[in-house]
Parts: sequence; C-alpha cells; structure tokens
Amino acid sequence: MRELKSEGWAVGTALLLLLLLAPAAQAVAQRRYTADWQSLDSRPLPRWFDEAKFGVFVHWGVFSVPAWGSEWFWWHWKGERNPAYERFMRKNYPPGFSYADFGPQFTARFFHPDQWAELFQAAGAKYVVLTTKHHEGFTNWPSPVSWNWNSKDVGPHRDLVGELGAAVRKRNLRYGLYHSLLEWFHPLYLLDKKNGFKTQHFVSAKTMPELYDLVNSYKPDLIWSDGEWECPDTYWNSTAFLAWLYNDSPVKDQVVVNDRWGQNCSCHHGGYYNCQDKYTPHSLPSHKWEMCTSVDRSSWGYRRDMTLSTIASENEIIEELVQTVSLGGNYLLNIGPTKDGLIVPIFQERLLAVGKWLQINGEAIYASKPWRVQSEKNVTIVWYTAKDAAVYATFLYWPENGIINLKSPQTTSTTKITMLGLEGDLTWTQDPQEGVLISLPSLPPSALSVQYAWTLKLTKVK
Amino acid sequence: MRELKSEGWAVGTALLLLLLLAPAAQAVAQRRYTADWQSLDSRPLPRWFDEAKFGVFVHWGVFSVPAWGSEWFWWHWKGERNPAYERFMRKNYPPGFSYADFGPQFTARFFHPDQWAELFQAAGAKYVVLTTKHHEGFTNWPSPVSWNWNSKDVGPHRDLVGELGAAVRKRNLRYGLYHSLLEWFHPLYLLDKKNGFKTQHFVSAKTMPELYDLVNSYKPDLIWSDGEWECPDTYWNSTAFLAWLYNDSPVKDQVVVNDRWGQNCSCHHGGYYNCQDKYTPHSLPSHKWEMCTSVDRSSWGYRRDMTLSTIASENEIIEELVQTVSLGGNYLLNIGPTKDGLIVPIFQERLLAVGKWLQINGEAIYASKPWRVQSEKNVTIVWYTAKDAAVYATFLYWPENGIINLKSPQTTSTTKITMLGLEGDLTWTQDPQEGVLISLPSLPPSALSVQYAWTLKLTKVK
Amino acid sequence: MRELKSEGWAVGTALLLLLLLAPAAQAVAQRRYTADWQSLDSRPLPRWFDEAKFGVFVHWGVFSVPAWGSEWFWWHWKGERNPAYERFMRKNYPPGFSYADFGPQFTARFFHPDQWAELFQAAGAKYVVLTTKHHEGFTNWPSPVSWNWNSKDVGPHRDLVGELGAAVRKRNLRYGLYHSLLEWFHPLYLLDKKNGFKTQHFVSAKTMPELYDLVNSYKPDLIWSDGEWECPDTYWNSTAFLAWLYNDSPVKDQVVVNDRWGQNCSCHHGGYYNCQDKYTPHSLPSHKWEMCTSVDRSSWGYRRDMTLSTIASENEIIEELVQTVSLGGNYLLNIGPTKDGLIVPIFQERLLAVGKWLQINGEAIYASKPWRVQSEKNVTIVWYTAKDAAVYATFLYWPENGIINLKSPQTTSTTKITMLGLEGDLTWTQDPQEGVLISLPSLPPSALSVQYAWTLKLTKVK
Amino acid sequence: MRELKSEGWAVGTALLLLLLLAPAAQAVAQRRYTADWQSLDSRPLPRWFDEAKFGVFVHWGVFSVPAWGSEWFWWHWKGERNPAYERFMRKNYPPGFSYADFGPQFTARFFHPDQWAELFQAAGAKYVVLTTKHHEGFTNWPSPVSWNWNSKDVGPHRDLVGELGAAVRKRNLRYGLYHSLLEWFHPLYLLDKKNGFKTQHFVSAKTMPELYDLVNSYKPDLIWSDGEWECPDTYWNSTAFLAWLYNDSPVKDQVVVNDRWGQNCSCHHGGYYNCQDKYTPHSLPSHKWEMCTSVDRSSWGYRRDMTLSTIASENEIIEELVQTVSLGGNYLLNIGPTKDGLIVPIFQERLLAVGKWLQINGEAIYASKPWRVQSEKNVTIVWYTAKDAAVYATFLYWPENGIINLKSPQTTSTTKITMLGLEGDLTWTQDPQEGVLISLPSLPPSALSVQYAWTLKLTKVK
Repeated sequence: MRELKSEGWAVGTALLLLLLLAPAAQAVAQRRYTADWQSLDSRPLPRWFDEAKFGVFVHWGVFSVPAWGSEWFWWHWKGERNPAYERFMRKNYPPGFSYADFGPQFTARFFHPDQWAELFQAAGAKYVVLTTKHHEGFTNWPSPVSWNWNSKDVGPHRDLVGELGAAVRKRNLRYGLYHSLLEWFHPLYLLDKKNGFKTQHFVSAKTMPELYDLVNSYKPDLIWSDGEWECPDTYWNSTAFLAWLYNDSPVKDQVVVNDRWGQNCSCHHGGYYNCQDKYTPHSLPSHKWEMCTSVDRSSWGYRRDMTLSTIASENEIIEELVQTVSLGGNYLLNIGPTKDGLIVPIFQERLLAVGKWLQINGEAIYASKPWRVQSEKNVTIVWYTAKDAAVYATFLYWPENGIINLKSPQTTSTTKITMLGLEGDLTWTQDPQEGVLISLPSLPPSALSVQYAWTLKLTKVK
Repeated sequence: MRELKSEGWAVGTALLLLLLLAPAAQAVAQRRYTADWQSLDSRPLPRWFDEAKFGVFVHWGVFSVPAWGSEWFWWHWKGERNPAYERFMRKNYPPGFSYADFGPQFTARFFHPDQWAELFQAAGAKYVVLTTKHHEGFTNWPSPVSWNWNSKDVGPHRDLVGELGAAVRKRNLRYGLYHSLLEWFHPLYLLDKKNGFKTQHFVSAKTMPELYDLVNSYKPDLIWSDGEWECPDTYWNSTAFLAWLYNDSPVKDQVVVNDRWGQNCSCHHGGYYNCQDKYTPHSLPSHKWEMCTSVDRSSWGYRRDMTLSTIASENEIIEELVQTVSLGGNYLLNIGPTKDGLIVPIFQERLLAVGKWLQINGEAIYASKPWRVQSEKNVTIVWYTAKDAAVYATFLYWPENGIINLKSPQTTSTTKITMLGLEGDLTWTQDPQEGVLISLPSLPPSALSVQYAWTLKLTKVK
Repeated sequence: MRELKSEGWAVGTALLLLLLLAPAAQAVAQRRYTADWQSLDSRPLPRWFDEAKFGVFVHWGVFSVPAWGSEWFWWHWKGERNPAYERFMRKNYPPGFSYADFGPQFTARFFHPDQWAELFQAAGAKYVVLTTKHHEGFTNWPSPVSWNWNSKDVGPHRDLVGELGAAVRKRNLRYGLYHSLLEWFHPLYLLDKKNGFKTQHFVSAKTMPELYDLVNSYKPDLIWSDGEWECPDTYWNSTAFLAWLYNDSPVKDQVVVNDRWGQNCSCHHGGYYNCQDKYTPHSLPSHKWEMCTSVDRSSWGYRRDMTLSTIASENEIIEELVQTVSLGGNYLLNIGPTKDGLIVPIFQERLLAVGKWLQINGEAIYASKPWRVQSEKNVTIVWYTAKDAAVYATFLYWPENGIINLKSPQTTSTTKITMLGLEGDLTWTQDPQEGVLISLPSLPPSALSVQYAWTLKLTKVK
Repeated sequence: MRELKSEGWAVGTALLLLLLLAPAAQAVAQRRYTADWQSLDSRPLPRWFDEAKFGVFVHWGVFSVPAWGSEWFWWHWKGERNPAYERFMRKNYPPGFSYADFGPQFTARFFHPDQWAELFQAAGAKYVVLTTKHHEGFTNWPSPVSWNWNSKDVGPHRDLVGELGAAVRKRNLRYGLYHSLLEWFHPLYLLDKKNGFKTQHFVSAKTMPELYDLVNSYKPDLIWSDGEWECPDTYWNSTAFLAWLYNDSPVKDQVVVNDRWGQNCSCHHGGYYNCQDKYTPHSLPSHKWEMCTSVDRSSWGYRRDMTLSTIASENEIIEELVQTVSLGGNYLLNIGPTKDGLIVPIFQERLLAVGKWLQINGEAIYASKPWRVQSEKNVTIVWYTAKDAAVYATFLYWPENGIINLKSPQTTSTTKITMLGLEGDLTWTQDPQEGVLISLPSLPPSALSVQYAWTLKLTKVK
C-alpha cells in the first residue's frame, strides 16, 4: 500500500468536500490567476513545450488485456452493445465474465520502464504522455479513491505512473499525464448524468481527488485532459483546479495543459489546443497546438489483431511530423504497449525510424518556429521552418530532374544552401519566375542517410 | 448496472457531504430520537427479535475463495504477515497475486437463494443475517461507492444481498444485514487512521453512503454492525445514523440493531448486545442479548481444510441454543458457504438437526421468556424457560435411574408434567428435600424422537 | 520424470508387442496357472481378503474438477451429449473448453496421504482401493504410456498412487488399485471399437502396459478391475495377464482380484465377485463377494452440489455393513475427495461413525464367517456371523419391550450371552416356540455407546 | 474426435508392430526403392522443389504460450535447468506449474488460415512448412497416439495441420510438414535412450505411427524431418519409412524430404540437404540444398520479448535470398505466430517486403538455375543466376559512380542488358580489363521501385 502523503491529500480532499481551499500563504509576489477562463487563458505557455515539438503518447490500461477492437472495448461491448464485441466475449470467455475480470490479467510482467524511456529517447521524443486513467476508470497509479481498481491493487501490482516517470526524467524528457475526466461506467458519474449533471458526486469523490493526487505525487510537466465532452467545465470544476495548478501547485511554473476541460473548451480554452483527435489545421493557427495521432491508425490501445494495413508507414509519420511543426504544432505520436508491458517491434521500428530521421533533420524541428510561409508545392511539397538566422525547407519527394525550386525564400548574395546530413554547399541560381533553383547532389540511393523527406538549410534569405 | 434510486441516494450523500439532513416532513406525531446514546438507548426493542430466538448467520465474501485459515485471510496475510499465510500464497499462487485477484473466482455459480432459505427455514431459524460487507470491503451488493469491488461488477455478477433477501422473506423469515464499519485496507480508512481518526474521509466516502444505501435498498429487519473497535462512535457518526434509522428510515418501526457502533459501545449501547463474539453470560442479563457462534469453531467463513474435529456436534449446538434461550438470549448460528454458493452437507446436517430438535421442542424456545430460575444441576443440567402458564425444563442427559429431580419448580395439586414429543403425562412426586421427582418413561433408544436434550413441560407450577 | 525400471517395463512391453513372455526361471516348485478361466478360477483366494471385511474405496481423478453430476461427467457431456451437461459447460466455461482443460485444475494441493490413511484406519477399514485410472484415462501415477495425461505431468504433479500406498501401508492396511480397462475416448480404443474389437491396438499400447506397470511399481494387494463391459475377455487379454499375475508377478502370493475382466466374466470368473455395482445377494452366495457402494448415493466421485438428501446416513451404512458381512461379503465404502485432495467433513463423519461402531462391534465382523443362518426377523431384523466358538447376532432396532427373541440359535446349558460393549452377562430363557428370549439391559440412551445396531455374543450355542 | 481412417492406420500400425508390410499390389511397373541409402539416395528430386526457391517456415506449438526465450523453452527449463528459465517460471507462475499446463492457453483464437496463406502468397513463397510436432511432442493435428497432447484435445481444439493445408493449397502453394523424430521428454523415448537406443519402444508407439498418419492424412509435398541427432537412422527406421514413402505412399511421386533422418545423415543422405540450421555453403554444392533461417534471429518460435535488434532487416533477408538462390539453394524463411494464431505486424512487414522485391525481381529467382559463376565482387557484390537464355546479375549496393562492371559475363554483339522493373535497355561497353561496364540510370530515390538489390538481365552473353 502506498504511503499517503496526508497533507497534500488533505488539501485536495478538503477542497472537494467543503469547497474551501486554504491557499498556502506564499511570500512570492507572483501573478495569481483567478478561476475563470479569461484569467487562465492569459497565462503564457511555458517555453519548453513549444521547443519540444515531438512527444510519444502511450495508451495503456485494462483495455490492453482484451486487446481487441480498440481501447474503447468496454464501451463498445457494454455501452453500445455492439454485436461484434458481444460475439467476441461470448466466443472467448465464460458467461458472466465482466470487464473487471480482465484486471488480474493486466500483468505488465515485462514492463521495464528504462527500456521504454530509452526507446522514446532514441525516437527523438522530448516528452512522453502516459494514460494515467482512461475512460474505463482504472488508474495506473495507486489512487486512494480507486481502491481495487488500480494498478497497485490489481494486475501489475506496481505504480506504473511513478515508474515510467522516474525512467523518463532520468533521460531529461518531460513527463505528461493523460487523465480522463469522465468514466463511462462509474456509478457516481452515472448518477450525476441521470441528474442532468446538476449534482457533482463524481467530481467530488473521484475526478478532483485524483487530479490533485496526480499533481502532488508525480509533478507532471503536462496534463493531457480528456473525457470532457458530456459536461460543461462548470460540472468538472475545471477552472478552480487550473487556478490552483497555476498558482499553488508544485508544478505551477512549468506545467502545460491542453484544452479538454469541458464541452465548450476544446479549441477555445486552456493551455495549448488539441481540438479533435488527429486534428490538423490548414494554415498557421494563432494559438499553440498539438497534433496527436497513433501509429496504429485504428486504435490508440494495443490490439492483438492489428495488421500492417492499418499501421502508418515511416514516410507517413515523417510527413505528419514535418507538416505539423511547419504549422506551429507539436506532434504527439501514440503507441499502445501490450498487457505484458512490451512495445511490439513494429512500434519500435516506427519510433526508431523517426529518431533516425531526426538525428539528421532535428535541427529543422526542435526549437524551430514557423516561418512566414508554411509550405509550397511545385514538383514536390516543401514545408518550412525557421530557427535563428536559418530557414529550413523540407521536401518530401526527390524531383526527377534533381532540381528543387523554391519560390518563397528571397536569396541574397550571401545566401548559402546546404542539405542536412550532407557535406558541402549546394549550387543554386535565382530565377525571376521560378524562384531559387537548387541543384540536388546526384547520389546513389545507398549513399543517402535519409530515404524520405530531405531538409535544405538556407541562410541569409528573407 | 443497477438502477440507482437517485432520491434515496441523494439523501444519503447529501447528509454525508454536508451533514445537512432534511428530515422528511412526517405527519405522524411519533416520538423522535436524538443523536445521542441516552435517547437512542431508550428505544424499546421491536418485539419480533426477542420472540425469534434462533437465527442463521452467513459469512460469505471474497474470503470464500482462498477458503483457507479463516475469513480474516487478508489480514493474516498482509496485515500481520503471518508466515503460514505467506507460505500458503507462495506455494499456491504466482508471485504478485493480490487479494483483489481472488475476486473473479468468487463465482457463486451454484447459489440458489431459495435453496438456502428453505434450508434455513427447515433449521427452525426465524431470521437470517448475511455479511453484506466484511472487513475486506467487498460488498455483496452493487454499492455505488465500491465500484469494481462488489458482487455485481466482479465475481458473481449478481446482487447477493437482494437475492437472498427476496428468498428469505418469501418464507416469512426476518432478514438481517451484517455490515463492517471498518475496512482493513481501504486507503481512506488508512488515511484517517494515520490522522488519529481526526479526519473522517472514509466515513463520508464509504461507510455512511453504504449504510444508508443498504437500509434504503433492502429494508433490513436487523443491522448487525461490526468492525467498530478501532475508533469511537463519534468517528463513525453512529448516533446520527441510528437517529435517522429510528426516526425516518423506511424500517424505523421494526428494525433491530446490535451494539457494535464504536469502541466504547459494545455491551453498553445500541439495540441488543452481542458483547464479544461467542459471548455467553453466567447469569440472566438485564438487557436483551444474542450469542453468535459458528458451526465451524475455527472460522466464520468457509474453509476448505476444515476437519470434523473443529465442527460443533449436534449436541453441542443444541446445548448452546437451550442455554442461550434460558438466559434470555438469541442464538445466531453461523455457516460459511463456498465460493460457488453451496452450503456443504456437514452444515446442512447440523442445521437440519437443530430444525428436527425444534420441531419437538420449539414450544419451549420460540417466544419464550426466561423463568425466575435459569438452570439447576443435579444429575444432569436443566435449563428453564417459560411461556404463558407453562414452565419448560430441558435436561441434557438422561439419568441412569430414569428419575429427574427438579428443585426449583413448586408443584401444586393441579401440576401436570409432560415431555414434549411424547403422549401422556409423566408421574411425579414431591419430595421435601429433592423437589419434584419425575419418572421418565422407560423407552428404547429407537423410540425417542429426540436423542439429546429432552424438554419437560410443567403447568400449574410456581 | 519418474525413473523407469527398464527391466520390468521391457518384460511388460515385450509381452504386449510380441506376445512372447519369457517366464523367469523360478526354482520354486509352485503350482502354475494357465491362461484360461478353468485354471485361474481354481486359485484359492488369499485369506487376508475374507478376513478384512471392510474397505474404503476412493474415486479421484480429473472428474473431481468439474465435480458436478458424477464421475461420468465426460461421458454424459461428450458421449451422450446430455443437455444438462452441455448447459453446465456453456454456462460456466468459455466456448471450446475441453475436458483435458480441466487437468491443470486438479491440484491436489491439500492432499496429505497420511491424513487420509489415518482417517481410513480410524474408520476401521482394513483395505483401501484407489482409482488409479477411471474411464477418463487420466492416470494417477506417472504412466509412461499416458504422457501428459497423468498426475505427474498435469495437475497435482505428484504420484498419487505411490503416495497413498506408502501412507496406507505404514498403517498396515492393504492397498488395492482400481483400474478401468476401457477409456471412453481414447482414440485407439475407439479405433478397436470401430473394428468390432478385432484389433487390439488399445490393449497393446495402453491397457496392458499400464496394468503391468501398476503391478510392478506398486505391488498391490488387490486389483479392482472395471470398464470391461463392452468387450470379451479375449479382447482384453485378461487371462494372460492373470496367469502372469498369479504365477510370476511380485504379488503372486497375496494379490486378490475381482471379476470384471470381460463382458462375460462378472459374477462368473476372476477372484471374488462384485457382480454389479452395489449388488447385494438375497441369500448366502457360494463364492466370496464384495459389496461396493458410495456414501454419496448419487456419485462415486466428489460432487460439489451434493446435498444431505443423497448422503447415506450412519444407520444405513452400518446396516449395509452388517448385512453384507452376514452374507459372506466384504463391504467397500466409497468416498470422493475434492480436486484439492480433501475429504469433506460429511465423509469424515460417516467414516468415523463406522469406526466408532466397529470399535465396539468389530469382534463380530473382522475375520468372522457366515453362520449357518444369515438372518431372521421378528420384532427387529437380526444378522448373524460366527467366529471361533461364538455366534454373533446383531439387531438393528431396540425392541420396545426390551426382549430379543432369537429362533435360530440352540442354547445349551452352558450358553452365555453378552452384549458387545457392555459388562456382564444378559439373562435369557429358552422358549419352545419363541426360541431364546434375551432380556436387554434397561439403559438410558446416553449410557449406550452404540446408538444403532447392537451385537449379542452367544457362546456354546448350536 | 477425428474419424480415424482405420485402413490406412491399420497399415501403419501393422508395419510398426510386426514389421511386415504387405505392399499393395500395384500394376504400375514403377521403379521401386529398397530400404537402404544407396537406393533411396538415387531417387531424383521432384522438380517442383528446385523451381520453388522460396518458402515460408512456421514454428507454432505450445512453446508459443510462454513465448519467451525460444521454442526450446521446455528444454532450457527442465532439461538444462537454465537458471534464467527457472527464474522466469518462479516469477510468473504458481509453484508446480508444468509445461503441460501451458496447453490450454494455446488458444489459436485468431487463427484464420486463409489470412496466413494469403500473406505467404503475397510474400512470394511457393511452399509453406508448418511444425506439425516440435521436440515438445505436442501434435498440431489430432494424432491418435498423442492423446490429450494435441491441438484437437487441448488448446485450439482444431486440426491446425489440416486447416492450414487447405488454405495453402487453395492458393496453389506446396505444403510441407515439419516433424521432429525425437521428443525431449517422452517417457518411451527416455526409456529407449536409457537402453542405449537398443530398444525402439518410442519409434514403434509414437514416431512411426505419426509419420504414417501425417502422410496418409495430409498428403504433404514435403517432409521436413528434424530431431534426428541423438540416434542413428537404424533406430528411427528411417529407410523403411522412406522406402514406403517413395514406393507406396499417396504422395510417392511428388514428395520431397530433407536430410535429417539419423545422426549420420545430415548433409549425406535423404532428399535435399539442410545440413545445419542456417547453413550456407561457400561455393556451389553438387546436391540440392535449402537454407532455413528465421526473421527473428534469436528464435524460431514467437517470443513476446523480441526487440527490433534481433529482427532481420529487409535488406539482410533479400541478400540471403539472392545469395542462396545463386548458390543453388532454396530459401526457407521462418516466422513464429502467437499463441492466438496471429502473425505480428513486423513479420508481416518483412514477408511483404520480400514479396514486393520478388514482384520485380522474381524472374531472376523462380525456376532459375545457378550460372557457371555464382558471384563476383568489385565495388559491390553481384550474384548470378540463369534461366533460359538469360543471365541475371543482382547487385546489392548502387555504385557511387553509377557504373557496374561485371567480369564474368562475356558479351556478344547482340548482348542486351536491362534492369528488372525498368523500361529500356542500359548502355554498356566492354573493357578488356574490367569486363562489361554498364551505365546505371541516374534516378532519384523515389523513382526506384526497389530500394536494395537491383537485378540486371543480360541476354546473349556467355
């Protein structure tokens, strides 16, 4: 049983039960936020997040046990009564088998957090976001208000959130915690729902105690909120929580949050924006955003039955990363580990492919800014970023004639153009119509360290 | 998922959260109790309980899965770290197997509540008490605050409390609910304990919501409280609950409770007294009491490894029943069903033996009152009860000479003495020294319908 | 893996494969039996068996895992396709669950052979017969021709036959091995059956190697053959096996067998006769026989769902024992242990009741002979046995008038009559019509050490 | 239960038991082989095998359940007592858990043989070899002499050999059956081993019945024998089996076998040669051979814990295929499905990569012959094959200067050189020193349909 830090917890609980928060008297004359969106939205986003650009998302939970369909297994089965799921259960389990009965099979027996963290680092990720609790309500840490439905009491018998956090931070990666506000089948949530969300039994007894506990116990750099869509933020008490988080929590200075804090919030309030899952804007947004997607296009959680046809190729992933960063976003790429705690080789391969690409081209990605033009398309698509004095142009396909022409950059006499990963300058000419024409080196395929999406670095351009 | 009755539940929760009870405006000018012992203790005990005399106690829960040692399995294993329990787990389960992992194996697959109720009725029981939740915290009903640790979500996937209640009541037996205030390992209880029981997180979030829910949902005739011993009643909010129970609950008129409501209460406050487990007084107490004991002397819960040597014999059980009733008590005899929901034959046999004995001798038991003398011992022990105009003397051993002498009853000229289960009057004489000398019939063993503990009925004695 | 004794095994196998038995050259000028019934039936039954009178039968196997219906579970389910069994499986197990899948759950985790043997000894048994292999084919010892379908490879991972044998012999009880010739679903048996039993693949590959192995490895005092009914003894090679058993096996001098060696044999050939299960003759048979029956009237194997109503009472069991021995039989009383290796208390109680009765009355049972009259009935049934100079008359009900009259014994002037378990002689008179009239002592029930079936010992009677 | 074809089976058994084979009177005046190597080795290899070139090998069995270490799990654990395996079992399973206990977990629940076959076809394989029985002895078909240790009685409850065969043949792929002669822990094998392999109990009772059954039931195109190494072929009765297979079996005309038929056979006798696992010769062998290897370099069976580092890359696989075929071999590439019956995506990806390569370059592979020169190395390695009038030269790396020079082919005036997958002829010149110098097209990476190992086709060369 985890030692409870009674002080921290008492704070959380007191708040919930009595709605009386005694703010710790702090000497710092810091700006304080009030529990409304106007104030909260005015908080500047801590810098690390925009610089990080690339993170790994991890969906892991009891859904990794049936590992079939998707991480929404329980909902499809019992919420929707989807016949395919009912048939799957009927065929493979004894009558009366419940979702909770999957719990003991979530063993995590091969979970070595350092191996995960090493892989994520090798993938070039700068932050890692773990599902601490998905809509199923199972907590991957020993939550005191989720007794016998958490990873310490049932299944792994380990503090998954804590263990991964330690491994991730040992490698100087940032650590984010995914947290679902709602729980599909929690009886108190169902009660509140029945009451038209005029009562907040669930929020008092479960959501808020757990959010406070997560922050106090694991000091996350990022809270990736989800499951907000059925209720307004007033039901969730989101603004009160965020005010505490920004003013008084142990992570107040560096913590980043997303935008899923109530059904009216997504794309409008909070920290950075996720908008919908896998959302990509068409032009440069004015607000920092993140594109989250999954290597397995059909599921965030591990599915035993996935086939190669639904798995994003290396090229698709790299293209998404490049596009996202050009458009000012961060790219959060998801993999689902098995119930044993393994990341299967196809996911390893994809992540390492990103890492290999970033080793050559990371200069154009990390800490870059959107340039004044995001992309152009001639023979091939080109995506721009900028950093310091340089402009970076990443093109996805190698033109047949070996000439790239870029219309947007305006060269100067001192303009220099190189290709990342290649020695020497490239020759170029300026054409009044076509813009700058750059001669790519004539290299055999085996000589290129990158097989897709090559980056040109232009200095002294406007 | 059970349909929550939101109104009843809202009442309970509101009370807990805000300690504001809006008493239903009731027109009845009924006496109301206040939330203190002086008032609560003054409530007369509903009559049915004293008349019932004999009940069956049922210990059933996740402890029925390991079914080894006793129902305190979890505590011995993880609380005490008793080496025998640690060895048992090491030898029989994979490393890391937790108590919660036993949950799915609690199948109750052969649980037919009508068969149980029929057996209890055949045993002559007038009430049945089921463990709705033992110290392990697993609820045998779908408690909304024990999500995924209850008999609907895990294991049986049935409402055990509800199903047994329906079957018991169909046979006009009274239905009592055992409920443990504490839960050994509930994180909120451990937190409160760490805080010296100055906080009541656990009581607010778990104990009280569940007690109210039990009363509102199942309308018990009896609440058999337990698990009170580590904290004062003020921690448990017991008096507030009892005041509501007596004043406003749906069972206010008939409900009976015992005395385990705080560490200072047992044998002093509440309804009838249990004092300690298996407690028997030496002389007639002034307060109604109940002796609870178990057919398996070494465990209340089912143990696979029990041997005949720890199982009470029929004679021992009947003697306890007779003695208890003579001393004004009720006798609550426990059996532990298996995880499958079966009552093993040895328990069936013992219960039916009591039923068979009561069919002959029940007249001296049910609705009887203690007599002015409780017992005397000459050649054999004799226990007295009284009802209407009759005095009943039950003797345990048959005297070798066929003569029973009773000193306490004072015969009159119209005194008549019979033996229950036998036609005709017995002859007797009055001896100045020895009292009344009664000639027992000279019968071969096969002719007696009772093999142990015969009852004499004396009318017109003083 | 058990160390195979290659010599013994090689002999056995050679025989089977080539039907060439090289008889060990033995110096003893012993009578030799030939492989035909005339010769085999002429062998005198080793004396110990008739003297033993009472044995315990143990049905234990994979059928103890479902523990539902009876030990014929598999047959009812898959052979007959009995809807009740199909429903049971459908309701409680995942689709596709097979009988073999029960194997790993046969844990025997609480099997302590010394506790069993102690219980059997306390029951007064002089021999114990264990199912080494029932019709399901699972062997309770590491049979080399039943790989991965035996108790060493699967489930208990122990040599059950060997372990119980050691414990039983430590207490000087004889050890018998039940063995089923047929196996319902063995593919080679099904093949032979399809061939009209004109091929003997199964006998060569399975039955005979195992029978030889059992004899060589465990040196049984008794082989309790079963499962013979579908084929003639010529299919089973029974006479060849028995000739080897009687002539050359390590147990040739003491081994006893029953009569189930082919569909024409039962009640006609072999050692002693069982005839049908639970068979009882009406008058004294001319051939030694044994009555086998089960405490649970409805099953030989353990059934979780048995109720008291199908369990033989103590009186019924004692009556059967008395009757059987009077009629020259042995009484083999069966209990079925659980998959855990436990003998449940109701069975303990029944066995100990027999033991208690035999402690007083064993003198009339063990090593007794049938008397010239087996029974008579006046007021109560009386069963006779004889030993040395005494005649024993056991009466089941105590006559109301306290007088037993026996017509068969002819008293002499020196005739003495006592009751076992009681000091002193009983008074009697001889009546020309009624025979000897014996006055029973007038004792209160509590004073009798026997509650049912009292034995009179008559000396110097004819 | 599978319907046994009693005739076929009787033939097999009779042979085994009596060593008397009654050869079916066949009118065909066909050449007959005698049961000795001289005769057997003289049989010409059926043509299809050499033309097939590329096959997929599938290791699947109970070892796929622990899925840890390798398919030798049982041996490492119980044969060697390797501490890592003992620790793995101790940590993850209850004490006493046996290898047989894994059986029920081998569910094959997602096994769709048509999906497998489709994948293998898409990989360009012309034959598929499945482990019908590995050294663990578990048979993937309902073998009548492996009762309760086969895929019909235990685990999948399906005939895996039969189902995959049907799917494979529907796509006109050839079907091969891997079969292990030895079984590590079979008690009869252990007995024979103890007897110095002078007895053949195991061969009579298990090996031969199963081999005959496999041939008669599934009519394989190929028998991939293994597990021969501890005993001479005379122990295994291999020559008798092969004589029957070549003379009288239903597959006598087309069946191909390898060389593992006794410890003296590998690389010397049988059909084609495997020599050792993963064996590759340095120069062109005089006898047809096959190189077998596994995508997972560290295991043939599925391992949950495999990481990308032990998985062969696409390039490595293609290089092996090219080299093997140049040297006259076939390439048999192994994947291990999961216990669920799934082929994980990384294996799908590798197989499909081979298929994609073969779509362009298959012309140089299928039905090709070794050329007079196998390979040469200048700037890059070049491997030759020949078919009809063409010579094929596959080079692994693209030379930096875009010029390939080949010394071995002697051009003529009509020589034409093309690259597979590319329109048009390549220009070339003949240099007295350097041989033919071929100018490769100057293409951007994205324009090449092959990323590695390009094939030149030369016609009219010598």
